[in-house]
Amino acid sequence: MTDSPDVSARRVTRADVARFAGVSTAVVSYVLNNGPRPVAEDTRRRVLEAVQMLGYRPNASARALNLGTTSQICLIAPGVSNPFFAWLTDRVEAEARARGLSVVIVTSADESIVEAVSRVSHQSIDAVMISNEVPATDLAALGRSGIPTILLNQPADVVGMRSVNVDRYRGARFAVEHLVGHGHQSIGYIGPVGPQETRWRGWHDSLESFRLPEGPSIEAVYSREAGYRAAHELTALSDQPSALFVASDELATGVMLGLHEGGVRVPEDIALVSFDGTQETRFSIPPITSVTQPVDEMVRHAFDLLTTEATSEVIRLVPELVLRSSCGCPPRPSQ
Amino acid sequence: MTDSPDVSARRVTRADVARFAGVSTAVVSYVLNNGPRPVAEDTRRRVLEAVQMLGYRPNASARALNLGTTSQICLIAPGVSNPFFAWLTDRVEAEARARGLSVVIVTSADESIVEAVSRVSHQSIDAVMISNEVPATDLAALGRSGIPTILLNQPADVVGMRSVNVDRYRGARFAVEHLVGHGHQSIGYIGPVGPQETRWRGWHDSLESFRLPEGPSIEAVYSREAGYRAAHELTALSDQPSALFVASDELATGVMLGLHEGGVRVPEDIALVSFDGTQETRFSIPPITSVTQPVDEMVRHAFDLLTTEATSEVIRLVPELVLRSSCGCPPRPSQ
Repeated sequence: MTDSPDVSARRVTRADVARFAGVSTAVVSYVLNNGPRPVAEDTRRRVLEAVQMLGYRPNASARALNLGTTSQICLIAPGVSNPFFAWLTDRVEAEARARGLSVVIVTSADESIVEAVSRVSHQSIDAVMISNEVPATDLAALGRSGIPTILLNQPADVVGMRSVNVDRYRGARFAVEHLVGHGHQSIGYIGPVGPQETRWRGWHDSLESFRLPEGPSIEAVYSREAGYRAAHELTALSDQPSALFVASDELATGVMLGLHEGGVRVPEDIALVSFDGTQETRFSIPPITSVTQPVDEMVRHAFDLLTTEATSEVIRLVPELVLRSSCGCPPRPSQ
Repeated sequence: MTDSPDVSARRVTRADVARFAGVSTAVVSYVLNNGPRPVAEDTRRRVLEAVQMLGYRPNASARALNLGTTSQICLIAPGVSNPFFAWLTDRVEAEARARGLSVVIVTSADESIVEAVSRVSHQSIDAVMISNEVPATDLAALGRSGIPTILLNQPADVVGMRSVNVDRYRGARFAVEHLVGHGHQSIGYIGPVGPQETRWRGWHDSLESFRLPEGPSIEAVYSREAGYRAAHELTALSDQPSALFVASDELATGVMLGLHEGGVRVPEDIALVSFDGTQETRFSIPPITSVTQPVDEMVRHAFDLLTTEATSEVIRLVPELVLRSSCGCPPRPSQ
């Protein structure tokens, strides 16, 4: 019977609580506000039970949230095996805790975002944060859901919603510029390929602006395995680049092993810069220079956005290139 | 008002649905079973709305679950930045999906398990899986919660509950035995130290049974950072072991970088075996031989346990030593 839930399921109201407890809405108010009129203990207990069973949250308007200590938000993520999403997930949890809120997490590897939101919409959820990239077709449905929603990881600006995005295009350009600064003239790319991919586009445009030839570009999905295979493809090329921009840390881990097995040293034979800045880059051998996503800042802005009245706002953050030794910079103590 | 939720919050009943919808319990049955009596469309809609708002789940008994497609379970984890818990979390999600169930995840870095369970107890949760190590004092409270609970990661057997555990003690012994097989006589340990730590105990007893001296044992919490610092401590010792058992992959990643910076080669100068078997060990340079937790099997058993009538059952699985090159075994293609 609940197998076709509606994203726009209505919120629980004070009237619902009154009906369930068998009292008037005024009595519900007296109980929740501790006055002004006294309420018999038995009635009070019945109202509180109704509040709990219905998951009623007073003061939660659809747009600006007056987040109290009983508020609960839901984080939707594509999974947590990718260390970037694990990092983001644990930061959301920590920030929520610091603000006295609680979080439930829904991972949705194969599920549509709209399904995932509908699944939590009849629970006691005051707001949703989404770290998946949401397909344009799903955005409209989310806008209609009535649940305050913050998008955490969109590749492009979204009109009519609230989102916190990282400028991946600029991040990719930082990576290539740094490699050019090290004197490289032939810079390859490993990752998702094509003009719709912001990281590929940043790499491509950056080479163009330096009037450098487009180095080899090897298609790979975001996984260690795919990076490993791409590196083996690269080492088989007759014309190897002297540097690589790799679209994620997870990919880079696989690339590094593939290069190592092919007898290619990093950074001596191929310099490498990746993207994300997870703990893995810091503890890799050698440690990886990575365009680092400002996860703390992303999460802080996302929570701040929840309490604003704005119905449409895009916060665009700039990632930072953190230098380690895979790009050819001098080794330094792990940091 | 909901700030002191009770773990033993009662489940929503058919009578609650009837009361909320303003119909008899018989009418609720007719709607849910599609008969035998017809129900007016308007009434039917009211009943389904009540079912959804109350999160009512028919057929869910407290012990053996008749898990249907509307069932939802909750996974509690200490966080997901540790790749082992990320792996376990994504596997629970995948197995649930394969069985037509959905999962919400609650991470509880600083929260007590009892608090975390109480937080979800008034939601539409049919069962809870806990991957944290639960302190003995909390186990009794969980037993009384009335929510079917499966423990996924306890260091010792728990009476009166259902759990799936991995025999870490034997796993640690496999690691040491393998290093002894490579001819090592001096085998150190990095990780949590003491007789209450199953991995430390396995290392300790194994050395004793081979009549080998107790190599250096360096205390470290489960983090890359702690492993990194422990390796620097180790390289400063005048009397270095020729092999190391490291209590987790996350620690091992830090240890490998620390040894590398200290000019110590793995496996030539120090052979290394770790524990967990996450993807990180496979893509490390060199790839790490690791006592691998049977995560797929753990998760399958956990879901099977949910549908049994048993109130107390311990399933104890044996981990497998997966050989890569950090122990001194010949390098092989990444697997």
